[in-house]
Amino acid sequence: MVDQHRFLLKESELPTVWYNIVPDLPHPPEPPLHPATREPVKPEDLAPIFPESLIAQEASPQQFIDIPGEVLDLYRLWRPTPLLRAHRLERHLKTPARIYYKYEGVSPAGSHKPNTAVAQAFYNRKDGTRRLTTETGAGQWGSALTMACHFFGLECCVYMVRVSFDQKPYRRVMMQTWGGKVFPSPSENTQAGKDILAKHPDSLGSLGIAISEAIEDAVKTPDSKYSLGSVLNHVLLHQTIIGEEALLQMKQAGEDLPDVVVGCVGGGSNFAGLAFPFLREKMAGKKMLRAIAVEPTACPTLTGGEYRYDFGDVAETTPLLLMYTLGHDFIPPGIHAGGLRYHGMAPLISLLHKEELIEARAFQQAAVFESALVFAGTEGIIVAPEAAHAVKAVIDEAEKCTASGEEKVILFNLSGHGYLDLGAYDIYINEGLPEVNHQS
Amino acid sequence: MVDQHRFLLKESELPTVWYNIVPDLPHPPEPPLHPATREPVKPEDLAPIFPESLIAQEASPQQFIDIPGEVLDLYRLWRPTPLLRAHRLERHLKTPARIYYKYEGVSPAGSHKPNTAVAQAFYNRKDGTRRLTTETGAGQWGSALTMACHFFGLECCVYMVRVSFDQKPYRRVMMQTWGGKVFPSPSENTQAGKDILAKHPDSLGSLGIAISEAIEDAVKTPDSKYSLGSVLNHVLLHQTIIGEEALLQMKQAGEDLPDVVVGCVGGGSNFAGLAFPFLREKMAGKKMLRAIAVEPTACPTLTGGEYRYDFGDVAETTPLLLMYTLGHDFIPPGIHAGGLRYHGMAPLISLLHKEELIEARAFQQAAVFESALVFAGTEGIIVAPEAAHAVKAVIDEAEKCTASGEEKVILFNLSGHGYLDLGAYDIYINEGLPEVNHQS
Repeated sequence: MVDQHRFLLKESELPTVWYNIVPDLPHPPEPPLHPATREPVKPEDLAPIFPESLIAQEASPQQFIDIPGEVLDLYRLWRPTPLLRAHRLERHLKTPARIYYKYEGVSPAGSHKPNTAVAQAFYNRKDGTRRLTTETGAGQWGSALTMACHFFGLECCVYMVRVSFDQKPYRRVMMQTWGGKVFPSPSENTQAGKDILAKHPDSLGSLGIAISEAIEDAVKTPDSKYSLGSVLNHVLLHQTIIGEEALLQMKQAGEDLPDVVVGCVGGGSNFAGLAFPFLREKMAGKKMLRAIAVEPTACPTLTGGEYRYDFGDVAETTPLLLMYTLGHDFIPPGIHAGGLRYHGMAPLISLLHKEELIEARAFQQAAVFESALVFAGTEGIIVAPEAAHAVKAVIDEAEKCTASGEEKVILFNLSGHGYLDLGAYDIYINEGLPEVNHQS
Repeated sequence: MVDQHRFLLKESELPTVWYNIVPDLPHPPEPPLHPATREPVKPEDLAPIFPESLIAQEASPQQFIDIPGEVLDLYRLWRPTPLLRAHRLERHLKTPARIYYKYEGVSPAGSHKPNTAVAQAFYNRKDGTRRLTTETGAGQWGSALTMACHFFGLECCVYMVRVSFDQKPYRRVMMQTWGGKVFPSPSENTQAGKDILAKHPDSLGSLGIAISEAIEDAVKTPDSKYSLGSVLNHVLLHQTIIGEEALLQMKQAGEDLPDVVVGCVGGGSNFAGLAFPFLREKMAGKKMLRAIAVEPTACPTLTGGEYRYDFGDVAETTPLLLMYTLGHDFIPPGIHAGGLRYHGMAPLISLLHKEELIEARAFQQAAVFESALVFAGTEGIIVAPEAAHAVKAVIDEAEKCTASGEEKVILFNLSGHGYLDLGAYDIYINEGLPEVNHQS
């Protein structure tokens, strides 16, 4: 009997609902506040930037939400994604732990991001949107959204942080391959961009500026809306397809619920996507499993931030969210996991952490890349630097089992491949990476 | 009833034999000739560069060869690969044809190359090799072999054509991530390299020079052998796992044998891997299916070459092979499908073409990238420029069906993803690609 490596669902077994964790929380989440009045935001306040369907999902009290047929059809281009058992990593670590990973890097854009991009493009088209705007840093989110827009015949306009636009042309080309219009931000398209360029003609840009540009563009252009790739409730909702599949696949692997579930966190969507369905089982009393959110020491939102209302952007134009935050004026250092550089954290994840239903951990980037090399050398896959944070936490947990002899079951989200991040591997292998800590 | 998109084999259904087409050919292939004596090469002539097991496989008369268990274990890291039906491409083309593709881009190295890399590393270790050398152009083969060597604890030394080493650092980093030693060629490691550098200190290198360096290194270094990623019989043999899986998956999809099987050809291994098992069925009289080998107009070996004995390298050190060739001194222009720039063609494919059992077709690179964009926009996947040649031929065949109303079944090998080839997409999208024709 050969050890099975991959656990695959049939297309007909693809889950047909998303899981909304809100009704299962110990208490309801606090509402977002209007930036001017500091009163709870009303649906109509959000109408200039989001379509009606997504505003409704953002505040939905329903536990399960049907995935529309057209979204399922597109999910089937790469879903169900495989669940894999890391036999070779286990043997390398000489651990009695059983390590499983859900591999989201098989999507055409190379990460979990298309799970929500496709859903958001669908609801926008349904509600009459002709064109979506968004911002992107390293480009994972921008490429997912341009692909999704192309599938639904929507225009997609991406404001890409200038320094990434110049230094990471591959992601820009990917967006153009799917028909996206990509502008380096700050740009001349918006007043926000022009103001910055007037003062700083050589500005390298920032995610904060790019968000302001994308929102301004959406508000002032007819039939345009704005789209966000993490943080918000409806984004986390769409990602739960990951965990719903994983629940079925763990059964197929002959396991009950895992002891530990691990994911990296930037805004929080890939961690939520895997962990929320398992946390439902935990909150229903089925198993006291642990869920670990992993972040960089350079941007330690959960492990080093405060739990309070804060803005989502630098310019203080977004609603205030109750969340762990390093301060909306925090500029994270240029670490190589660009997707983990957000100053805040999804309000739902923040609430779970405040209530001690999940744990958090922070690692230095050199230790993270060391783990990535161990993973590439055993399982073969070259993981994205973001996902490598999860790998590092998993190796730590598995090594504790090596010492204690415990046969724990560990599951993590391998949220994306690292083919477009080999520049960071180059620096780690050939130059070395410095320690980066958050200065509070 | 939803149209099924993906046809997946269970791990337990992974084929356990490779298919050797030699005994099924209309007549035995002509032997390779010794470069000095022009007499048929004897096994002992090859012993300095290849291990015993692979020399035996190269001349094996057996129709099926068992895949060793350790190789199967490693194949299971990514195999069986999916067979997918291109519903969205079909609808876009309004074709009654049914289009299927076998997706080899899911391997950790991103192409079909690990199928033979893992096998070659296994047999080398078994026969006492401690270290493998090879050459690589764009880096697909080099990255596959470094991964395979790492799995078997072998050192791997790759001579990478200088211009690619400088211009494509991502592939070099990939090889280093799996522990490979990568040298720009020409290098100071070998006499061949030193001779070139003495005359041309700024030489950009060529595949011909890199081959000479890799062979010289293997011959002069104890316990070292040389490894080749295409052309030879044993390499094509290892790739037949692709077609053996596809045969089972086409049945699962409810199809009989396809009408047309398509693959791109450089040295010929990915085309052979998919097509040979189907050609076995053709030669057994089960179906008069067509197999189409697709090449660039810039390097039209099958469509513009001569069928004759020729050397495998510029320096005339390899045995002479009976094959279609553009001449061993032919320097192909710098087209963007680096894997299709070989002057010769696998002797087995050459024989099949000579006997009119397969067809060949050549395309301009601009038309090839246009097809790649259609594919990315419908099926999502960004394909390697090499594989895009197959896509172009498939779209042509499907459009003929649109015109004629014929419901043909078309199957092609999507041999690799294009994440590391986005520079070529950039040039096509933002600058345009010129026509390149072979000047004979």
